[in-house]
Amino acid sequence: MTLTDIAPSVFETVESEVRSYCRAWPVVFEQARGSRLYDEHGRSYLDFFAGAGSLNYGHNNPVLKRALLDYLAGDGVTHGLDMSTTAKRDFLETFRSVVLEPRALPYKVMFPGPTGTNAVEAALKLARKVTGRETVVSFTNAFHGMSLGSLAATGNAAKRAGAGVPLPHVTRMPYDHYLDGRMPDFLWFERLLADPGSGLDRPAAVIVETVQGEGGINVARAEWLRGLADLCRRHDMLLIVDDVQMGCGRTGDFFSFEEAGITPDIVALSKSISGYGLPMALCLFRPELDQWQPGEHNGTFRGNNPAFVTATAALDTYWRDDTLRDRTLARAARVEGALGDLLGENGRSAVSFRGRGLVWGLEFADGKQAAAVCRRAFELGLLLETSGPYDEVVKLLPPLTATDDELDEGLGILARSVRHTA
Amino acid sequence: MTLTDIAPSVFETVESEVRSYCRAWPVVFEQARGSRLYDEHGRSYLDFFAGAGSLNYGHNNPVLKRALLDYLAGDGVTHGLDMSTTAKRDFLETFRSVVLEPRALPYKVMFPGPTGTNAVEAALKLARKVTGRETVVSFTNAFHGMSLGSLAATGNAAKRAGAGVPLPHVTRMPYDHYLDGRMPDFLWFERLLADPGSGLDRPAAVIVETVQGEGGINVARAEWLRGLADLCRRHDMLLIVDDVQMGCGRTGDFFSFEEAGITPDIVALSKSISGYGLPMALCLFRPELDQWQPGEHNGTFRGNNPAFVTATAALDTYWRDDTLRDRTLARAARVEGALGDLLGENGRSAVSFRGRGLVWGLEFADGKQAAAVCRRAFELGLLLETSGPYDEVVKLLPPLTATDDELDEGLGILARSVRHTA
Amino acid sequence: MTLTDIAPSVFETVESEVRSYCRAWPVVFEQARGSRLYDEHGRSYLDFFAGAGSLNYGHNNPVLKRALLDYLAGDGVTHGLDMSTTAKRDFLETFRSVVLEPRALPYKVMFPGPTGTNAVEAALKLARKVTGRETVVSFTNAFHGMSLGSLAATGNAAKRAGAGVPLPHVTRMPYDHYLDGRMPDFLWFERLLADPGSGLDRPAAVIVETVQGEGGINVARAEWLRGLADLCRRHDMLLIVDDVQMGCGRTGDFFSFEEAGITPDIVALSKSISGYGLPMALCLFRPELDQWQPGEHNGTFRGNNPAFVTATAALDTYWRDDTLRDRTLARAARVEGALGDLLGENGRSAVSFRGRGLVWGLEFADGKQAAAVCRRAFELGLLLETSGPYDEVVKLLPPLTATDDELDEGLGILARSVRHTA
Amino acid sequence: MTLTDIAPSVFETVESEVRSYCRAWPVVFEQARGSRLYDEHGRSYLDFFAGAGSLNYGHNNPVLKRALLDYLAGDGVTHGLDMSTTAKRDFLETFRSVVLEPRALPYKVMFPGPTGTNAVEAALKLARKVTGRETVVSFTNAFHGMSLGSLAATGNAAKRAGAGVPLPHVTRMPYDHYLDGRMPDFLWFERLLADPGSGLDRPAAVIVETVQGEGGINVARAEWLRGLADLCRRHDMLLIVDDVQMGCGRTGDFFSFEEAGITPDIVALSKSISGYGLPMALCLFRPELDQWQPGEHNGTFRGNNPAFVTATAALDTYWRDDTLRDRTLARAARVEGALGDLLGENGRSAVSFRGRGLVWGLEFADGKQAAAVCRRAFELGLLLETSGPYDEVVKLLPPLTATDDELDEGLGILARSVRHTA
Repeated sequence: MTLTDIAPSVFETVESEVRSYCRAWPVVFEQARGSRLYDEHGRSYLDFFAGAGSLNYGHNNPVLKRALLDYLAGDGVTHGLDMSTTAKRDFLETFRSVVLEPRALPYKVMFPGPTGTNAVEAALKLARKVTGRETVVSFTNAFHGMSLGSLAATGNAAKRAGAGVPLPHVTRMPYDHYLDGRMPDFLWFERLLADPGSGLDRPAAVIVETVQGEGGINVARAEWLRGLADLCRRHDMLLIVDDVQMGCGRTGDFFSFEEAGITPDIVALSKSISGYGLPMALCLFRPELDQWQPGEHNGTFRGNNPAFVTATAALDTYWRDDTLRDRTLARAARVEGALGDLLGENGRSAVSFRGRGLVWGLEFADGKQAAAVCRRAFELGLLLETSGPYDEVVKLLPPLTATDDELDEGLGILARSVRHTA
Repeated sequence: MTLTDIAPSVFETVESEVRSYCRAWPVVFEQARGSRLYDEHGRSYLDFFAGAGSLNYGHNNPVLKRALLDYLAGDGVTHGLDMSTTAKRDFLETFRSVVLEPRALPYKVMFPGPTGTNAVEAALKLARKVTGRETVVSFTNAFHGMSLGSLAATGNAAKRAGAGVPLPHVTRMPYDHYLDGRMPDFLWFERLLADPGSGLDRPAAVIVETVQGEGGINVARAEWLRGLADLCRRHDMLLIVDDVQMGCGRTGDFFSFEEAGITPDIVALSKSISGYGLPMALCLFRPELDQWQPGEHNGTFRGNNPAFVTATAALDTYWRDDTLRDRTLARAARVEGALGDLLGENGRSAVSFRGRGLVWGLEFADGKQAAAVCRRAFELGLLLETSGPYDEVVKLLPPLTATDDELDEGLGILARSVRHTA
Repeated sequence: MTLTDIAPSVFETVESEVRSYCRAWPVVFEQARGSRLYDEHGRSYLDFFAGAGSLNYGHNNPVLKRALLDYLAGDGVTHGLDMSTTAKRDFLETFRSVVLEPRALPYKVMFPGPTGTNAVEAALKLARKVTGRETVVSFTNAFHGMSLGSLAATGNAAKRAGAGVPLPHVTRMPYDHYLDGRMPDFLWFERLLADPGSGLDRPAAVIVETVQGEGGINVARAEWLRGLADLCRRHDMLLIVDDVQMGCGRTGDFFSFEEAGITPDIVALSKSISGYGLPMALCLFRPELDQWQPGEHNGTFRGNNPAFVTATAALDTYWRDDTLRDRTLARAARVEGALGDLLGENGRSAVSFRGRGLVWGLEFADGKQAAAVCRRAFELGLLLETSGPYDEVVKLLPPLTATDDELDEGLGILARSVRHTA
Repeated sequence: MTLTDIAPSVFETVESEVRSYCRAWPVVFEQARGSRLYDEHGRSYLDFFAGAGSLNYGHNNPVLKRALLDYLAGDGVTHGLDMSTTAKRDFLETFRSVVLEPRALPYKVMFPGPTGTNAVEAALKLARKVTGRETVVSFTNAFHGMSLGSLAATGNAAKRAGAGVPLPHVTRMPYDHYLDGRMPDFLWFERLLADPGSGLDRPAAVIVETVQGEGGINVARAEWLRGLADLCRRHDMLLIVDDVQMGCGRTGDFFSFEEAGITPDIVALSKSISGYGLPMALCLFRPELDQWQPGEHNGTFRGNNPAFVTATAALDTYWRDDTLRDRTLARAARVEGALGDLLGENGRSAVSFRGRGLVWGLEFADGKQAAAVCRRAFELGLLLETSGPYDEVVKLLPPLTATDDELDEGLGILARSVRHTA
C-alpha cells in the first residue's frame, strides 16, 4: 500500500544515519497510552522500554495530562529560562515537601539544561570547581551521557570513539561484581588514594550509578555503595549519584540510593522527573556546595515550565505515600520469579539475570541472541531493548504503572521469545 | 502581604545560586501570551527578550497551541526517543518541503538532544570524526553552550572558568570588526593555515555565529561570511554555522546565513525551531558527512514529539511564503531608525548600536549603565537583557510576531529608560 | 675559617631552591675515583649511590678515562649532532656485536637527547605514532622522567604537581606485589582490555621498569614480567622497558629484562650507558617500528661523542664476557645475606628489604627513620639515598666495580647507622 | 674500496631512520679543530653550522680543552647529580661575576637536565606553577624542543605530528614581521588580553626567541621585544626568553635580549653555555620566582661537571671584556655586506636575507633551491644547513671564533654555491 510505503522514506532519505531505535522497531508510531504504544495502523505494542526509563508513570498518564492541558490552555508560561514562575514555585515547594523533607535531604535544587547529560555536566563542573581538582573517578560500563564532559565518564568504546578528541580527567574503577569477587571491594581504589606515588591525582569526585542501565543492568549491592560512600568521606571526594535512569521510583524508592542509606553530595536527575516524557533535569547538591556564580552554568530550556507542571502532578500523585514504592518492590519479586523460571527452562541461551525494583536484565551468551529475542518480542507485540558492552543483556523497564496483567503479558511474551529463538 | 512575601522564599532557600534572570526581574511570572508576560498579580510585561530567542513567534502562539493541545489530547506519542513517529514524519516532510527544498539545501537532519549545546556538541563531534582532526576554530566572543565540548568554543571567561578543567582543541580567531579594520580580514587566519611552521594544527572545522548574540550583538558582514566560507573551502575545513539563536527568522530569512549566500557544511538549530519554547534541536549537514554509526550520538529527549508538532505548525504558518521574512526586514529599518534617534539624543551614555532583522544591540559605556537601563525598563514594564563581554550591550530580541504598536511601545520604553538613567 | 664558610654561599645565594642531594650531603665534593668521592678537604666518602645508577663502573674508571683523554687530546669530534662519526661508528659496531647480536636482539638504535627522560619521550612518541593510539599504561610508583611526556607516566604526586598542567593519556596499573597478592596478576588489566565497555581506550603501549628504583626498589618477578609481555602480545600493545636505571648490568645481565626471557618492543637506556657519567641515552626498538621521519625527533646533544667513546670502552671492557655479570649476581647473595642479618637484628625500625643484582632497598617504617639512617651513614662516610613514595626506603646502588672490601665496608656502615638510629 | 664502503653500513643497518644531518653530509667525521671538521679520509670542512649553535667558540677550543683535560686527568668529579662540587662552585661564581653582576641581572640559576628542551620544560613548569595558570603564549615558527612540554610551544607541523597526542595549553601569536606590518604590533594579542570574552585564558607566560633559528632566522626588532616585555608587564604574564641558540654571544652580547634592553623573568640557556659542545643547560629566573620544592624538577645529568669546567673557562676567556662581543658585531656588518652583494648578483634564486651578530639566513624561493645550495657548498667543503617552515632558508652560524679568512672563505663558497645552482 501507499502511505506506509512512502512514509518511511523521509526517515531514510532525510534523517541522519545516527538514528537507532527506529531500526529495531520498523514501524511508525502514532499514539501512546499507559503501557502501550500504537503504530499508525493501530497495532498495539506493550512497552517494556518506557522511553529508556523516562516514562515511569506510563505514556500520557491521564492525571498528568489533565494538569498539562489545563496549564497550556490557560496560557501558563511555557518557556521560562530561569525566571521565577508559579509553575516552578509549585514544583520546588512540592519537591521540597514530598521528596526532600521526608528523607531529610538538605539539597539545593539546580535546573541545568533539560537533559541527563546536562545534569551530569553541571554535577562534574560543580565538583571540580568546589574542590579545585580535575580528576573524576567513574566506573567500568558507566553511562553518563554524550556531551564531552559526561562522555569522558562513560565507558562504552563505540560512543567514546565518536568524540574525535581524547577524553581526559577521568579514572576508571571496577564496578561492583566486575572482578567476580576476586579482589576485595575498593582494595585497588583505596591503595591508589593512600599512596602518594600511585599516580592517581587526587579526585574531585566519584560518579556512580546504583544500577548501570546502559552498562547491562549491573546492580551494585547496598553494602558496596555504603563502602563507596565511606571511601569518599574518608578521602574527601564528593560522591555524585547519577540517578538519571534509576531515580524517580525505578528501583522502588524515589531515589535509587535510599536503599543503601547513603546521602550523595550531588545527585543528577532527569528522564522520569517530569513524569510525562517532557525534557527536564535537576542537579541536587548539599547547600555548602552551592558555590555557583549566577549564570555560571545555564541553558535555554532549563525553565521548561510544562515539565514542571507534570513533574508536580507526578509527585503529588505518586509520592505522597508509599503505595507506588511498595508496589514496585512487590513486583520486583514477581519479575524475579518469572525470570528465574525462564532461566531454569532456557538455560541454553539466557545465562543469568539480575535487577532491582522494576529494572531487570536477562543476559544472553552474546549480542546476537539478545537481539533475536528482542526481534521476536517485537513481532509478538512487546518492545524490548538490549544493553551491556556486547548488547548481550535484554533490558526490562516496564512503566511502574503497568497493571499486573500487563506485567504478566510482557513476561509471557519475553518467555515465548526466548523459547522461539533458543 | 503574604503569598508574595512567602512565595519567593522557595527560590531563595531551595533553588541554587546559579539562577540569574530571576534576579533582574524579581517577580513571579504566571502567564504569557504573544509579546507579553504576566506576573502572578496580573501585571503585564512587554517581552523584548523572547526566551533568549526561543520565542520568535511569541508566547503561546494560538496556532501552535491549537496543534499542541490537539496532539496531547489525542494521546499522540509524547516521548519518542528516536523512534519513527507520525509527528516526526510530519516535521521532516514539512522541514524538507518548506525549508530545505526551496533553498536547495541538501542537508540530512539529525535530532541530537533537545538543546543548543547538544546540537553544537554533535556538530563538533561529527566534524572531528569525519576529518580525523581535533582542532576547531571559533571566534572571539562566541557563545556555543555550556557542556564541555561547546564551552571550549565559547569565549566568555567567567563561563569558561566554571569548567574546572582546561578547554583544549579550540583556536580563537578575530570575529568581524574585532580589530576595527586594522588588519585585513582573515590575514592572520590564512597565514597560519598556509604556513607549516605556524603551530596551528590543521583544523577540522570553523564554527561561527552570523550575529553573536551573547557576545554583544556583533554582526558579521555578508562579505566577511563569504570570505570565511571561501577560506574554509580552500583549506578543506568544514564550516559550521551555529544558528541556534539567529536562525528561524530572527534576522529575516529562515537561516541567518542566507543573506550572505553561503552554504555551511553543518548547521546547528535550536531555540525557536519548536516555535513554542519547547526543547528541540537539530543538526543539519551535507549528506556526505553523514558518517555516524547508529546511536553514536544519542540522547533521551531527542524525540520530543510535542515539539515536532509545534515546529511543524510554525513552519506551515510562517514559512510557506515570505510574509514574516519581509515584515522582519521592514521592521529592522524601523528599529534602526529608533535607535539612531535615541543615540543622537543620548550620546552621553549609549555609545553605538547595531543589528540585523529583529536582533539589535545598544551599547553603553559600561555594564553598569546598561544594567541601569534594563532595571528602569523593567519598572516601566519592558523585559530587556544585556550581553557582551562586559554586559554593556542592551539586547533587543522582540518576538517576530510583535505588532507594530508593541514594537513602538517597547522602543519608547527603552528611550525613556535611557533618558532616565543617563 | 674562610674558604668553606664562604664557599657554600654561592650555592645558597645563586643556585635555585630546586637543588636537593646537596642538602643531604652538605659538603663540596672535589674528586672521585672508583667507589669513592672526596670533598674539598680531602675527606673520603664511599659512594653507594653511584650517580643514581649512572656510575656502574665507578667514578673516573681508569680504562674509560684513558680512552676519553686520548680522544679529547686527539681532537676527536666532540659535538656531533647526528652526523656520522668514527666514534659513533665504533660505538654502534661494538653495541651490535657485544650487546645485540649475542642476545639475538634485532633492535634499531636511536640517539635521542642524552638523558633518560628524552629516551622515554622518544619511546612514547614512537609507540603512539606507530599505533595511532594515545593511551599509555604505566604502573604505580613508576618513575620515567620530568619532561611532560614522561612525567605523565610517573607516579610521584609531588613531582606531578610541578607540571602545572594536567598529565593525561596515561592509565595506571598495579605493579607487581602492589596489592599484596590479593588480586590475581593482570586480572584488572585484562578485564579492562577485553571489555568494550570498560572505558579504557586501547593503549598504544605499556611502559614498565623491571625494578622500580625511585619507586622504592620494587622488584617485579620474572613471572610477572612474562605475564605482562604475554598480555601485551595478546592485546597488541607495545611493551616498553624503561631500563634507564636498571640497565647496563645493574641487575646482573646487561639488560634487566633478560632474566625474565622477554624481548620488549622498545627499550630506553641512559645513565650508565656512557659508563663515565657522561650524558648519553639510547632508544632501542624492533626494526618494523622504525617509522620515524628523518629528524622527527631530535636534540642538540644526541651526538655526544666523548660519551660514545667511553661507552664503547665500557662495553669492550665489561661485556665481552660474563665476568661482571657473574660477579654482580654473586654479590647479590652477599648483600641479601647482610640485609637479612641486619633485619633480623633491627626489626624494630627496618621492616623489610628486597633487591636484585646490586640494587637493594631497605624499607623503614617511615621516611624519618630512613632519613636518619642516611644522615648517620653520611657522618660515617657512606653516601646513601632514600626512595619510595614516603622516602622510606634506603637504596643501595654501589658501583658494580666496588671491591669486596668496599661492599663489606658499606654494608657495615649501613648496619651501624641502623643501629645508631633505631 | 673497503673500509668506507662498509663503514656506513652500521649507520644504515643499525641506526634509526630518524637520523637526519648525516644524510646531507654523507661522510664519516673523525676530528675537529676550530672552525673545521675533518672526515676519516682527512678531508676538511669549514663548519658554518657550529653544532647548531653549540660551538660558538669553535671545535675543541684549546683553552677549554686544556681545562677539561686537566680536570679529567685530576679525577675531578665527573657526574655530580646536584651535589655541590668545586667545579660547580667555580662555574656559579664565575657566572655571577662575569655574566650576572655586570648586567645587574638578579637571576637565580637552576641546572635542569643538560639539554635545551629540558631548560624550556623547567621554565614552562615554573611559570605555570608560580602563576597557577596553564596557558602559555608562543610564536609562529617558534622552536623550543621536542619533549611534550616544549614541543607544544613549537610551531613546526612535522615535528608536532610526531607527538602522537594533542599538544594543548599553548596559544600562538604572530612573531615580528609575520604579517608584514599589515597589523600593528600586538594589536591582536592585547585585544585578546583586554577582552574577557575573547576566549584567551589568562596566560602564565610568553615564551620567545629573539631570533628564530629553526624558524628561518627571523629577527625580532628590539622595539618589538620591548613592546612584548611591556605587554607582559602590563598584563602580569611572565616573559621567558629561550636563548638556547641565540645566547652565549651568538648575536654579539652574551644574552641576545640585551640589545633590546629588556630583562626577561625567565631565561633558558643551553647549546654553547658549556662552550665545548658538552651537554649543559641553565634556567635563570628572578629570585621571587624561585618557588621550587627541592627536587621538584630534576634529572640525572644536571650536574655534568666537565661541562661546568669548560663553561667556566669559556666565560673567563671570552666574557671578562667586550672583545668577542665587539668582534661579533663588527663581523655582522661584514656578513651583511657579503650577503647584500650576493643577493644583488643572484636575485633570481635568493630572495632575501636577514640576521644579527653571527646568525644569518639567506632565503630562497623554495626548499629545493636552498637544499641545492647546501649540497653544492658541501661539495666545496662548507657545512651549511637550512631552516624555516619550508627549509627554504640557508642558515649561517659560523663559530664566533672563526678567523676573518675563514669567514671570507665560507662566504665565498656560499656565493659560488648560489651561483652554481641558480
